[in-house]
Amino acid sequence: MSAKVWLVGAGPGDPELLTLKAVRALGEADVVLIDDLVNPAVLEHCPRARVIAVGKRGGCRSTPQAFIHRLMLRYTRHGKCVVRLKGGDPCIFGRGGEEAQWLQERGVEVELVNGITAGLAGATQCGIPLTLRGVARGVTLLTAHTQDDSSLNWQALAQSGTTLVIYMGVAKLDEIREQLIAGGLAPHTPVAMIENASLPAQRLCRSDLHAMQDDAHAFQLKSPAILVVGEVAACGAQLPALSEAPLAAALSA
Amino acid sequence: MSAKVWLVGAGPGDPELLTLKAVRALGEADVVLIDDLVNPAVLEHCPRARVIAVGKRGGCRSTPQAFIHRLMLRYTRHGKCVVRLKGGDPCIFGRGGEEAQWLQERGVEVELVNGITAGLAGATQCGIPLTLRGVARGVTLLTAHTQDDSSLNWQALAQSGTTLVIYMGVAKLDEIREQLIAGGLAPHTPVAMIENASLPAQRLCRSDLHAMQDDAHAFQLKSPAILVVGEVAACGAQLPALSEAPLAAALSA
Repeated sequence: MSAKVWLVGAGPGDPELLTLKAVRALGEADVVLIDDLVNPAVLEHCPRARVIAVGKRGGCRSTPQAFIHRLMLRYTRHGKCVVRLKGGDPCIFGRGGEEAQWLQERGVEVELVNGITAGLAGATQCGIPLTLRGVARGVTLLTAHTQDDSSLNWQALAQSGTTLVIYMGVAKLDEIREQLIAGGLAPHTPVAMIENASLPAQRLCRSDLHAMQDDAHAFQLKSPAILVVGEVAACGAQLPALSEAPLAAALSA
Repeated sequence: MSAKVWLVGAGPGDPELLTLKAVRALGEADVVLIDDLVNPAVLEHCPRARVIAVGKRGGCRSTPQAFIHRLMLRYTRHGKCVVRLKGGDPCIFGRGGEEAQWLQERGVEVELVNGITAGLAGATQCGIPLTLRGVARGVTLLTAHTQDDSSLNWQALAQSGTTLVIYMGVAKLDEIREQLIAGGLAPHTPVAMIENASLPAQRLCRSDLHAMQDDAHAFQLKSPAILVVGEVAACGAQLPALSEAPLAAALSA
């Protein structure tokens, strides 16, 4: 087995949403670097690997990115196979592109393995199709996290006609509401707020743009959560098997 | 095993991108309804199931949706476990939401299993991260297929600041270019056109908005293909391990 780094998406939380390729990568790993948001249950696929936690949750104590880079480089230079496990997909808000480029510039072989992103899994488990003929011809995934200084045009997003799936938005509900309503979305546009997407503890709070901040507060919505904004967010209310079961399970837990 | 329908995303083509949950569903299946765009290699996971092809490729001979609905209903009423295998993800341009609702209204138990969507897998295999800090804070997945009559605001999409991933756009490159340039995107905005995403036959054609129609013609780009439009589409050119290997493999095939 030659030295390389696998940048692997561990999916949204449900360990069954891991891909077969991710399982193979874990099986080959000498060392696994695991992010905070990854469900540790997936480690059953790498019983012989050395596991190192390198969480970087926003606002909390975290492992500097440069340290993670050096760790991957050091292990590969010792001939080890390294798996870097990230929540969701490595190339959707996962910095997979940055890490791959940094390693490749230093001659390290890199392979990326896609994962199911939390916004998609959470919406699906709540009975919300992110696209729907005649209603939403597209879907936009975006982050409200301001550490990223690239431009985001809320007015254009409001008018795009796509379903909006907003990551890392719980602390910014007020700003999101104001921007999207100013951009032209109706205050009664349906919103679904999904905590712990795809896990047994998943909770769903249904609301609309106008009321979402108050409703999230009353619901005690916690990060990490996903916001789905658009007409499709009202889907699934009539589908108790999909939408209410995880909520009921969470409330009775 | 009780009667139910699993609506399962088979992923973009690479059979290793199937999830563990999809493999479990296939293992429980009595009957598998398989779409055109699904790689038949995934059927190794359901050796005892009856397999029925129900392809519905745009413009070709196809199985009417109503017939597929009735087929699923008939088998479940005979106590069978049915897996409906769709390319990519069932809820991203896959009509999974419609089929789930139709079945649930008739009392059929339904479970949705997410899959890796082709636009994500194709971009990743070409070294293109769909989001990138400081460059693209979001990504929009949309279809150019006009059978869907819901509104799509090209000007807003052009100005959204997100990477655009366009499905079913090969026949509409001229219209897409005109709409996006009229909407404000620069003619030299990078474009990556990816055929057979994630398969050994994957091919990548790099271009820009202005030249993409001519370049696609010279390249003999064929459906199904994915278009990635935005600054990130220029990524990966310096990463031969990721971007050129599939192309080289395809050219030498």
